[in-house]
Amino acid sequence: MPEEERSAPLYGMMKYHLGWLDERLQPLKSNAGKRIRARLCLLSAEAIGASPEQALAPATAVELVHNFSLIHDDIQDGSHFRRHRRTVWDIWGEAQAINAGDGMLVLAQLALAEDPEAEPIKIVRGLRSLNRACQLLCEGQHLDMDYERRPIVSIEDYYQMIGRKTAALLETSCFLGALYAGAGEAALEAYSSFGRQLGLAFQIRDDYLGIWGDPSQTGKSAATDVASKKKSLPILYAMIDAGEPDRCRLREIMLSPEACADGEIAEVLGILDRCGAAAYTASEVSRISSGALEALAAGRPQSGAGEQLSYLCRRMTVRTE
Amino acid sequence: MPEEERSAPLYGMMKYHLGWLDERLQPLKSNAGKRIRARLCLLSAEAIGASPEQALAPATAVELVHNFSLIHDDIQDGSHFRRHRRTVWDIWGEAQAINAGDGMLVLAQLALAEDPEAEPIKIVRGLRSLNRACQLLCEGQHLDMDYERRPIVSIEDYYQMIGRKTAALLETSCFLGALYAGAGEAALEAYSSFGRQLGLAFQIRDDYLGIWGDPSQTGKSAATDVASKKKSLPILYAMIDAGEPDRCRLREIMLSPEACADGEIAEVLGILDRCGAAAYTASEVSRISSGALEALAAGRPQSGAGEQLSYLCRRMTVRTE
Repeated sequence: MPEEERSAPLYGMMKYHLGWLDERLQPLKSNAGKRIRARLCLLSAEAIGASPEQALAPATAVELVHNFSLIHDDIQDGSHFRRHRRTVWDIWGEAQAINAGDGMLVLAQLALAEDPEAEPIKIVRGLRSLNRACQLLCEGQHLDMDYERRPIVSIEDYYQMIGRKTAALLETSCFLGALYAGAGEAALEAYSSFGRQLGLAFQIRDDYLGIWGDPSQTGKSAATDVASKKKSLPILYAMIDAGEPDRCRLREIMLSPEACADGEIAEVLGILDRCGAAAYTASEVSRISSGALEALAAGRPQSGAGEQLSYLCRRMTVRTE
Repeated sequence: MPEEERSAPLYGMMKYHLGWLDERLQPLKSNAGKRIRARLCLLSAEAIGASPEQALAPATAVELVHNFSLIHDDIQDGSHFRRHRRTVWDIWGEAQAINAGDGMLVLAQLALAEDPEAEPIKIVRGLRSLNRACQLLCEGQHLDMDYERRPIVSIEDYYQMIGRKTAALLETSCFLGALYAGAGEAALEAYSSFGRQLGLAFQIRDDYLGIWGDPSQTGKSAATDVASKKKSLPILYAMIDAGEPDRCRLREIMLSPEACADGEIAEVLGILDRCGAAAYTASEVSRISSGALEALAAGRPQSGAGEQLSYLCRRMTVRTE
């Protein structure tokens, strides 16, 4: 067998996950995801005044890291579908999917390490930032799984988790774009701060939509996070801040090991309503996304790319009820 | 909860795997493995004339890469035990074990990227070598799993697989030790070649011992690779080179989906005996380990470390019948 054919199925699984190939590894024109992290990286480079091409290597790396984590997430969560397509493990089994995810994480490293354009000092700083984000990603994933089996999680615990699981990679995406564009330290800090806050606000909005999102918009069933008893921000807020007897009843429902019955879903929605959990969650999204836009402004983005970054920020954090 | 406590269990799983903690994450004095890759790296640096401390960062990195791959291997193989201890997934579940392995791969990257002593140009070359080896590791793991479901695998296919799954990381271990010691290109090539051939010979000896090893020495049951129908080198040799009707009968046994019955194990051992599979396998180990020692000599190792490397090579490739 020719050498390149031997490992072709391994790369085929990666390309399948990215939406480039179908289950039989034939070319496919599909929705390959929004590639938010790559766009943030390229736009951050442009906002500093560089051409986006200068940040192609880090844009590739952050997107590959994100997708490696999705391949492994799907195994960890036992998810059979992602974006209306079967997941890698569902088609090729867990063992091959673990390995395909590992390989994609390695390709992310090589995207930076083998970049022929960048100077070694920039590559090293880039790989430090990327791998610190990867480390936080693993810590966040650990916490997310750990929280599932804990009866109660504090708001602070929650922020620590999403800061790692979601915000760290968005922070690094913006940081790397600015770094590869030659930004100074103040601008690097501004773009990092923009990415970090954007990540937090994006995740909290996702929590909002998981309960109050329109199923026709989100592609998920109504109140899906209530049904699955996910410890998302609105639920945690109500478990701590709702008045009695609501708080007591909510904890009772959340702690029972069975899935939520339909009547209980309605009950939980009532409890969330009475303690103002939706308004609290929406105000957190709004507060943090405003912070993101302030950080972006401090980075003095060049007009076109700056507008696109603030548009992306609003799109990613606006409530779609 | 203090910040460092939140992620402590994640690092606890890694330390458990490395043999530093027990199942309850309490300190443990155990057999922490032979750390062959770290030793090869440190000794290669010494053989070039540097102090082994100069190669501590890459020695750490290659050992972490090896252990990341073991954590994931154990999930992929469904192995409940390793070195007489429960595997990480067996204790904490697959989801957490996948994540702990991911985290360890990331720590390997950081061991090199955050090294304060090395120059950026050396770090970048080190990370390229490390990640190319990681990529080959994933390709080798893919092939290994793929071969399990193929009826027949050629000797060439086999060498391609072990070249990736076993030899690539040993090659990089020696390369990185020499690189961090400041070796020139000829010496880098010599130590790479030594590590690569050592890895091949080591794996083939492992295949030999999997059939003819002394259970009291290997810690595995007699003819374990025959019982599990592993496509190891002696079996592949016989499937291709045995005379009729032995070859036909061996293929029939190997292709049936059931585990090997005791009578069949004796039958396979007879077939291997008649076609000289043991002598063939032993001669391959001997041929390739001689090549390793020649490559080592070409690297002109300084006396003490050179002797230790050739001792290690002989220990890793000698037949223990």
